[in-house]
Amino acid sequence: MIQIAVMGHGVVGSGVTEILLKHSDEIAKKVHEEIYIKKVLDLREFPDSPIAERFTKNFDDILNDDEIKIVVEVMGGLNPAYDFVKKCLLSGKSVVTSNKELVAAKGAELLKIADENNLNFLFEASVGGGIPIIRPLNQCLAANDVYEIDGILNGTTNYILAKMIKESMSFNDALAKAQKKGYAERNPAADVEGHDACRKICILASLVFGKHVYPDSVHTEGITNVSLTDVEYASAWGGVIKLIGSVKLTDGKQEIIVAPMFVKNECQLSTVDGVFNAILVKGDSTGDVVFYGKGAGKLPTASAVVADVMDCVTHKNERRYIMWEDGCKNDILPFEQSKYSMYVLANAENTDAAFETANNLFGCCERLTRNNPEQSELAFITPVMTYADFEKAKADFEQTGIKTISAIRIAVI
Amino acid sequence: MIQIAVMGHGVVGSGVTEILLKHSDEIAKKVHEEIYIKKVLDLREFPDSPIAERFTKNFDDILNDDEIKIVVEVMGGLNPAYDFVKKCLLSGKSVVTSNKELVAAKGAELLKIADENNLNFLFEASVGGGIPIIRPLNQCLAANDVYEIDGILNGTTNYILAKMIKESMSFNDALAKAQKKGYAERNPAADVEGHDACRKICILASLVFGKHVYPDSVHTEGITNVSLTDVEYASAWGGVIKLIGSVKLTDGKQEIIVAPMFVKNECQLSTVDGVFNAILVKGDSTGDVVFYGKGAGKLPTASAVVADVMDCVTHKNERRYIMWEDGCKNDILPFEQSKYSMYVLANAENTDAAFETANNLFGCCERLTRNNPEQSELAFITPVMTYADFEKAKADFEQTGIKTISAIRIAVI
Repeated sequence: MIQIAVMGHGVVGSGVTEILLKHSDEIAKKVHEEIYIKKVLDLREFPDSPIAERFTKNFDDILNDDEIKIVVEVMGGLNPAYDFVKKCLLSGKSVVTSNKELVAAKGAELLKIADENNLNFLFEASVGGGIPIIRPLNQCLAANDVYEIDGILNGTTNYILAKMIKESMSFNDALAKAQKKGYAERNPAADVEGHDACRKICILASLVFGKHVYPDSVHTEGITNVSLTDVEYASAWGGVIKLIGSVKLTDGKQEIIVAPMFVKNECQLSTVDGVFNAILVKGDSTGDVVFYGKGAGKLPTASAVVADVMDCVTHKNERRYIMWEDGCKNDILPFEQSKYSMYVLANAENTDAAFETANNLFGCCERLTRNNPEQSELAFITPVMTYADFEKAKADFEQTGIKTISAIRIAVI
Repeated sequence: MIQIAVMGHGVVGSGVTEILLKHSDEIAKKVHEEIYIKKVLDLREFPDSPIAERFTKNFDDILNDDEIKIVVEVMGGLNPAYDFVKKCLLSGKSVVTSNKELVAAKGAELLKIADENNLNFLFEASVGGGIPIIRPLNQCLAANDVYEIDGILNGTTNYILAKMIKESMSFNDALAKAQKKGYAERNPAADVEGHDACRKICILASLVFGKHVYPDSVHTEGITNVSLTDVEYASAWGGVIKLIGSVKLTDGKQEIIVAPMFVKNECQLSTVDGVFNAILVKGDSTGDVVFYGKGAGKLPTASAVVADVMDCVTHKNERRYIMWEDGCKNDILPFEQSKYSMYVLANAENTDAAFETANNLFGCCERLTRNNPEQSELAFITPVMTYADFEKAKADFEQTGIKTISAIRIAVI
């Protein structure tokens, strides 16, 4: 029998105990050992839990219990999760977490401590919820040079965009609906401003390229400015708008970004619907591989956590080969040097003249049309250019009295 | 340093040696040990190989070399692969294979021998080529009850169907094109008659439900009878025709089949294009998870083989938890008892009268229409019924002088 503790009894935490209790026999058969939840840490009371007597409000009850060999951290947030996890690792306990904020902020440090103590620090559930991605990336694709990852990493924003695309719902209405359905929080900033997706692409980038990428070094745009007009022009162009987290190697540096992008209808990521996530991995041997599924939710996420716990049990004195070093901003290509073709929506008195100006300033552009446009509306796609050059040309463009309303990258996937 | 042998230097085998040589440093870093190809078995000569001097035509050179701890079998076919693999396992060598025919026919026996000798027998590449599926199924989804798998498991047939769907190419023309492109063999029977997909769904079913399913107990239909008319009616119905391998638990028995099916456009499997494969896994906790990528090809398949080799290296004296028992026909639900709604294309003098007859015999049917149909053409969808009941009603239907041209299942995914 192996004894574990679960820190946090919220959505994911209660799912973890539910799965461990419900599937205890099958799990024991698979890992050749019974997994016993000795302690659950939560400040709230859960008198109706079948293991109510094992709850504690005191972290030290877990830390100081030498029989507890694996600790599951599903509290979320950076503090006190970081302090607790670090102390657990330093005291010889392997840790499994679903906490993307923690891994994105402190992954390199915690992996190093785990390594020095010959323990495991696993976080399959931190990206893609129930979609197996960290382990396949690490193991199945081990014989590949993975050179690019593009993903729809946040279900809330994908749900909102899908409502805008399929039902012509406005951003605000779609957000309200997502909140009503429990897909978005009352304060939706972390989702709609792209921070959640950013944490996840940071974790994937760190894993694949071996150096920690910190969220604050990643250019991140959310979807709050995406309008139904943009959605219509994306459709006219032959695609959809998706919030994409992307990382690839360019001249030895990581080109990494989170932003809404135009995605062609032919791309596998264009059909990802509702709260689903999809992660496209490009390897030199495998070609394109896509992992698709529910990126969040109680049981999908909890099942990924439990799979990690099982992996810890079967690798008690052996490190699973997840590891990356610390990284610095110098590893990242400044986003101004990143090259994209851009969709531009502008307001001009004379749209034909404005399009001529656009061609002069941005280079040869492709004009887009839609049904019943405003008279002053001009939409076009620029050639591929660095963001710095785009910003310069855009400033000159606006100097002529034209107002730029939207500017969205065209995904290169 | 760990020494291995590779049996077979065809498409996949040459890819395996290529990857192991090209990525040797990164791989050694990941598994903390150099992997050295000591022998390559092939009856042909490869004087230009950088390791030409390590080739042998004699299997005993591998079998009797106690320094060789891992053997890669990428010869394909049942014989002599089965004999060689069995002997390797019995003499204490772990085996990695990409050979779906071998695993589908002898998996239970070989896994048992591996288990008894505390060795690994791994076959990630046998299903889905470079798509990680066996390991995620086994590990990441370990905390789930997986209750259903539906997959597009054969790239050749998917390529042919995609050509029929998108370019209105006939089956024969699409097959010829696939052959020209090297996607289909000169004798395409194993692909177009569904046998290849059948082996793969057998492997997945065995893995998930723990009992070996032999291909000859699976009802298998190919795509040779699918016509452009059927493709058009699928489109009118709101979907596409795909060759689906499906297994699910029904009343404690495995309901398993390989057949062309109507798949709704909303289903993730409907958009799988060209030679790609996709496998949809349904688990009680994760919900739907889809794995998508190239199901065949030299480097995708070889990279999956190499990942297994790396797993063997890091788990030398430890069994990876892939295991299933032997199975029997009694574990399988007879396909006549399987329930599907059916698409029927028929020829009748009076189609309105024939549709009335259909409603009387099959129950309330949905009539389909297309542009410019033949005058004698009737297409409809029956209610859900067992295949036995469908066959009975169809016989009665034909008794009235109507000729049934096509009958295709409607996928329940």
